[in-house]
Amino acid sequence: MVNTQVFEWSSVKETTFDLKAYLSERRSQVEAALEQSITIAYPEILYESMRYSLLAGGKRLRPILCLAGCELAGGTVEMAMPTACTLEMIHTFSLIHDDLPAMDNDDYRRGKLTNHKIYGENIAILAGDALLAYAFEFLVVQTKGVAAQQLLQVVAKLAHAVAATGLVGGQVVDLESEGLQNIDIETLNFIHTHKTGALLETSVLSGALLVGVDDKVLLPLSHYARNIGLAFQIIDDVLDLTGTQEELGKTPGKDRKAQKVTYPSLWGIEESKLKAQKLVDSAKAELACFGEKAQSLMAIADYITARTH
Amino acid sequence: MVNTQVFEWSSVKETTFDLKAYLSERRSQVEAALEQSITIAYPEILYESMRYSLLAGGKRLRPILCLAGCELAGGTVEMAMPTACTLEMIHTFSLIHDDLPAMDNDDYRRGKLTNHKIYGENIAILAGDALLAYAFEFLVVQTKGVAAQQLLQVVAKLAHAVAATGLVGGQVVDLESEGLQNIDIETLNFIHTHKTGALLETSVLSGALLVGVDDKVLLPLSHYARNIGLAFQIIDDVLDLTGTQEELGKTPGKDRKAQKVTYPSLWGIEESKLKAQKLVDSAKAELACFGEKAQSLMAIADYITARTH
Repeated sequence: MVNTQVFEWSSVKETTFDLKAYLSERRSQVEAALEQSITIAYPEILYESMRYSLLAGGKRLRPILCLAGCELAGGTVEMAMPTACTLEMIHTFSLIHDDLPAMDNDDYRRGKLTNHKIYGENIAILAGDALLAYAFEFLVVQTKGVAAQQLLQVVAKLAHAVAATGLVGGQVVDLESEGLQNIDIETLNFIHTHKTGALLETSVLSGALLVGVDDKVLLPLSHYARNIGLAFQIIDDVLDLTGTQEELGKTPGKDRKAQKVTYPSLWGIEESKLKAQKLVDSAKAELACFGEKAQSLMAIADYITARTH
Repeated sequence: MVNTQVFEWSSVKETTFDLKAYLSERRSQVEAALEQSITIAYPEILYESMRYSLLAGGKRLRPILCLAGCELAGGTVEMAMPTACTLEMIHTFSLIHDDLPAMDNDDYRRGKLTNHKIYGENIAILAGDALLAYAFEFLVVQTKGVAAQQLLQVVAKLAHAVAATGLVGGQVVDLESEGLQNIDIETLNFIHTHKTGALLETSVLSGALLVGVDDKVLLPLSHYARNIGLAFQIIDDVLDLTGTQEELGKTPGKDRKAQKVTYPSLWGIEESKLKAQKLVDSAKAELACFGEKAQSLMAIADYITARTH
């Protein structure tokens, strides 16, 4: 029943919504806001290091999901932009720390040298720390037109998505699983629902929380976000096997070289793509009840499986 | 004039306030709250690593300052205890990261092996990250009886004290100054007002901010906190030269061995002690107007210069 609605909706609306133009406009708005979010001061090397990674491009998927979540809930781009920037600061903090020699030891990210390759390990650790802390200050100081109680909920939700209950917990299990061949699907799911899923879900939900909606809006958005979060990761694993350095902006084949258990290593590439597609379909079905207001989130869900980087 | 008031106040009250008992009671309350603040879950190693450093003892000066600041402003211990714990989580995060091989490379802290010596560098970095993020969640979720607007101010103030504008900025300048002999007093002051001063000041102010007081209370508290923060650092530098491993719980003489410019290396030990005492006197003078309500903060100021660790 729900699925039928979705397909009807798709057949009517999909041609009228220009996702490419939408993403491009949102990305420009987010880039402009991020560019202004950090002004260089003393000690310059720290601010430069923060800006180096924050402004290194990327899809800006988390900010865009936040803005879309806020609009679906009846809010505006203006009220959600500080939260959108906050999400990207937090995401960037996690990338800088994940790339460190003591962690994944990556030399390239988004086609550029990683933060510690440019600024050294000590500054990279501190730039990550500073971005994480500043994210919360920026959120509180810059957000306008949002009730204090709603903003507090966003603070708590964001922090929960980063801490041991979120991306840091996921990264720990990922590190502990390194080199192990007997990782089961539950562990793999734990890693990804925490390492990437938690912040993706929070991206969509935080936008809606700013507006102050109830569970009738929050629960479908949460299910939507969990589904696309997992689909996103499956496709990431697939792209690591099938993408080129140029497409990915990072070294491909890393997972296989590290003999890492991934979704395609458990399911194969085709089955992985199929499961990702099913997750995307479920995600879209969750939002069918919102009609036209959900068109950007619907289109973003499709983009997850269609992307090449 | 102000000084006269202070000395009159001291001569009357100092005998009636038992600082040792006060600090001991507050420390017990803080320890109990910290003990309950983090429950071990999966992945256990991460939570254990967080608890290892958070519950490693220490003076709990920041939480105690927060509780005292809140009481001076007319609030209760109950309403400030989550903020107090948050401050200690943030302080602990900064210690774990400062001790890393890429930073100060310390093997001991508070008389115990540092976090990375026990759990490895990767877990130590992530435990620090998780403590920093969780601090904000804990603050928002656990604080009761405080207006949302006031709590948001505390979130912003805390984040500002950690980011590039606070302790991370101070740590960067400290790292950049390593091995340099021509560090001037302005740079040394920048390091310490940021690396330790910002969070100490925020400790006192956050307690008062929870209550929602105006600048007539906040400004004297801010001056008080800045003065004792600097005095605290001067005494720390002095203790590094004069203290024993047993007293300090860490290797003494580290600054001299690293040829680090410190207050006593610029001023000598006696002059440093004298300046610290003057700062403590000024700090106390700032609070004279609050009368008996300031007795705990007054006594804590005295403790700064009298301490041996």
